[in-house]
Amino acid sequence: MEALRKIGQTGGCLVSRALSASLHRRQTGAVPLLLLQQKRYYADPGSYVQVVRDTVYEDIAVVKMNRKPVNGLNKDFLTELNITLEKLENNASYRGVILTSANPGVFSAGLDITEMYQKSPEYTSAFWRSLQDFWMRLYSTNLATVAAINGHSPAGGCLMALSCDYRVMAQGKFTIGLNEVQLGIVAPFWFQELMIRTCGERETEKALQLGTLYSPEEALKVGVVDEIVPLEDVTSVARERLIKWLQIPDHARVLSKQMGRHQLREKLHSKQEEDIAFFTNFITKDAIQKSIGRYLEGLKNRKK
Amino acid sequence: MEALRKIGQTGGCLVSRALSASLHRRQTGAVPLLLLQQKRYYADPGSYVQVVRDTVYEDIAVVKMNRKPVNGLNKDFLTELNITLEKLENNASYRGVILTSANPGVFSAGLDITEMYQKSPEYTSAFWRSLQDFWMRLYSTNLATVAAINGHSPAGGCLMALSCDYRVMAQGKFTIGLNEVQLGIVAPFWFQELMIRTCGERETEKALQLGTLYSPEEALKVGVVDEIVPLEDVTSVARERLIKWLQIPDHARVLSKQMGRHQLREKLHSKQEEDIAFFTNFITKDAIQKSIGRYLEGLKNRKK
Amino acid sequence: MEALRKIGQTGGCLVSRALSASLHRRQTGAVPLLLLQQKRYYADPGSYVQVVRDTVYEDIAVVKMNRKPVNGLNKDFLTELNITLEKLENNASYRGVILTSANPGVFSAGLDITEMYQKSPEYTSAFWRSLQDFWMRLYSTNLATVAAINGHSPAGGCLMALSCDYRVMAQGKFTIGLNEVQLGIVAPFWFQELMIRTCGERETEKALQLGTLYSPEEALKVGVVDEIVPLEDVTSVARERLIKWLQIPDHARVLSKQMGRHQLREKLHSKQEEDIAFFTNFITKDAIQKSIGRYLEGLKNRKK
Repeated sequence: MEALRKIGQTGGCLVSRALSASLHRRQTGAVPLLLLQQKRYYADPGSYVQVVRDTVYEDIAVVKMNRKPVNGLNKDFLTELNITLEKLENNASYRGVILTSANPGVFSAGLDITEMYQKSPEYTSAFWRSLQDFWMRLYSTNLATVAAINGHSPAGGCLMALSCDYRVMAQGKFTIGLNEVQLGIVAPFWFQELMIRTCGERETEKALQLGTLYSPEEALKVGVVDEIVPLEDVTSVARERLIKWLQIPDHARVLSKQMGRHQLREKLHSKQEEDIAFFTNFITKDAIQKSIGRYLEGLKNRKK
Repeated sequence: MEALRKIGQTGGCLVSRALSASLHRRQTGAVPLLLLQQKRYYADPGSYVQVVRDTVYEDIAVVKMNRKPVNGLNKDFLTELNITLEKLENNASYRGVILTSANPGVFSAGLDITEMYQKSPEYTSAFWRSLQDFWMRLYSTNLATVAAINGHSPAGGCLMALSCDYRVMAQGKFTIGLNEVQLGIVAPFWFQELMIRTCGERETEKALQLGTLYSPEEALKVGVVDEIVPLEDVTSVARERLIKWLQIPDHARVLSKQMGRHQLREKLHSKQEEDIAFFTNFITKDAIQKSIGRYLEGLKNRKK
Repeated sequence: MEALRKIGQTGGCLVSRALSASLHRRQTGAVPLLLLQQKRYYADPGSYVQVVRDTVYEDIAVVKMNRKPVNGLNKDFLTELNITLEKLENNASYRGVILTSANPGVFSAGLDITEMYQKSPEYTSAFWRSLQDFWMRLYSTNLATVAAINGHSPAGGCLMALSCDYRVMAQGKFTIGLNEVQLGIVAPFWFQELMIRTCGERETEKALQLGTLYSPEEALKVGVVDEIVPLEDVTSVARERLIKWLQIPDHARVLSKQMGRHQLREKLHSKQEEDIAFFTNFITKDAIQKSIGRYLEGLKNRKK
């Protein structure tokens, strides 16, 4: 359970650190450039996703994940992310998306583990389907996408980052990686193949066997991210890079993206039910449920 | 159209620079070592390809592309390249080929854009077939092949280079890359898979989405080329490397090459008609024809 | 035959160098730490494989190849390696394996060439099957595996190393690589695909066409090995790395390994008879037999 505790540090302790860092920034009084450039802002009360249109580059939407405290991916959040992206796709005034976090210090801690504990097979299946559906859209959307990774990004957080067209990560004590194996869970084939397409077969094999969490420097070296910059520059650099994608004629850029990504997306699409059955069967096993229970108990005790 | 203009610099302005550089070399009076080593030289009057047998290593043929001004690949040139290679394959006295340009400053500017403008579907199909046929031969020829990239090598020029067994590129202000997307065209699947086999999936995805043209240093770093050397050494280094290939017993070297390359060659072979139909249908669209027309008009105006 | 002679240096001359180095070490009187940590030691009299249980980490078995002089892989040795591994798999007290050589200076010189000379098709087929069977087990065993490459590792030696989960190689004048082509033989598809999964397609293509033997530094750079350390540290570093693998919950680590390796293992499994027929037909050809005969004659003469 040492491994489980380690993950918990992302889901638990680090949150307060992230929040205090965020607080600190507010006290300096400096108004970030991005805010000045933002024309519109919408977020339903209580919703998990904020969408901000860039004022200078009006075809860019900044999508901010905002499910406190660590953007844990539950069914509702995943569904909202999927709908948000669909709306942006259907709004011809948008051509590019920056995916980032409104919770500084954490891009996303990945799947919300409580979604896998003491749930019915039906719920578990619906939860997994919401992840698959959002992933298929994000990975092969016609929008140009850049991940502005402004904090920790383990497991499902890493999955989202790897699915964008480009990745800018904040320097600092953050980590990123498909570390599922440390929790006793195995990353499904589409996580694996996504990482292979980004980092190659050998690095992926090693990382998935060991559940490697990379520092920003390591992530840059093995290709998990494309660029690392100071935390305060993540969004502005992401915007600069996104503009390079938007300079390419849309029809050619989209055809090229589809040519590269169609195959993996279709592979999951054709195996979607099989993949759901495998996950549901695995996660609802007694031994796995007990292991998750002990892990959640450990998290609770540490918070006291 | 900014992107189209950029490509035009390769096809237009740079030509004069290349020619003046070539002129300058002639004036220095130095006789290149290669010329002294050349025993035989043949080129039909008006033909686009020169073949020179190396005098020291007599099983090496130097194939020089010579369609003025920038080795633009039209149907006749592609057909001649294909026939040239077939003749060399059928001549047991040859075991290796150095592919290079007789027009200093440009290895090849790629497909001749005028071949895609206001042509009948029949001609367009025949043009595309001539490219496919030449590529299938070059990529999987039993001859050992080294590209001596002595100048710019965008698009189809990069395709030829990537299809050789080894790539030596000249240092300097030259570029290389599959930049088709900048022209509003999408590199077909075999361009894409060829680059993936050379540079990996992630680099290829990014390069094809952005139409990246690499400097020699960048090309070396991502693996588009194997080595960069001063312009004057390109052919002699290419020869030295080719000799390493020729030291391997022919039957084993050829079996190994076929084992690696047979699959992609066969994939295009089995999809050849489909690929022709896709290209012809795409390029003869009104919108694409207008875009090419504006691009050619722009080129003409700049030359005045 | 220059190429054949070159290989011979691994199989021939270097042996004496290796043995003298080994002798030298014995004379220094220092007792290696590993020996002190070894609780049990078993080796049938005259057997080719020694298995030693680590005394500190009791779930680790050190498997020492010991067929004098250079761990040449003949049918009996391959069969014994296969049985050894099967026994360890069936012994629940073992979770990890360090594969190394008891003959310092040579990890393994690869296939024993005398097994391919003047043998019946039946024997040749049985020999090749013993290699396939051992390889399929080694590559996809549920045990965590680390290669402690304490010497030369050409051809089949490189194959074994590439099949482990991690590779630590000794610095020094050792080489590693799939150099079959230099002997006029072509590495079969599973050697090729194994190397592609480790080093990528481009590096593998070049290495298999040229029969590249890498220095430890080169091997590290292209990814043939994961780490290089002084010769005396190879086994202890291999143990430290293996422990990282053993910290992962077994069921998750094994599922992850199978997910990555099942496909290639199954590919050989489904083509096993075809692969045997191809090898037997190739190696029993007159021309190949004569070439091997000359090579063995050359080796004999040099030993005098």
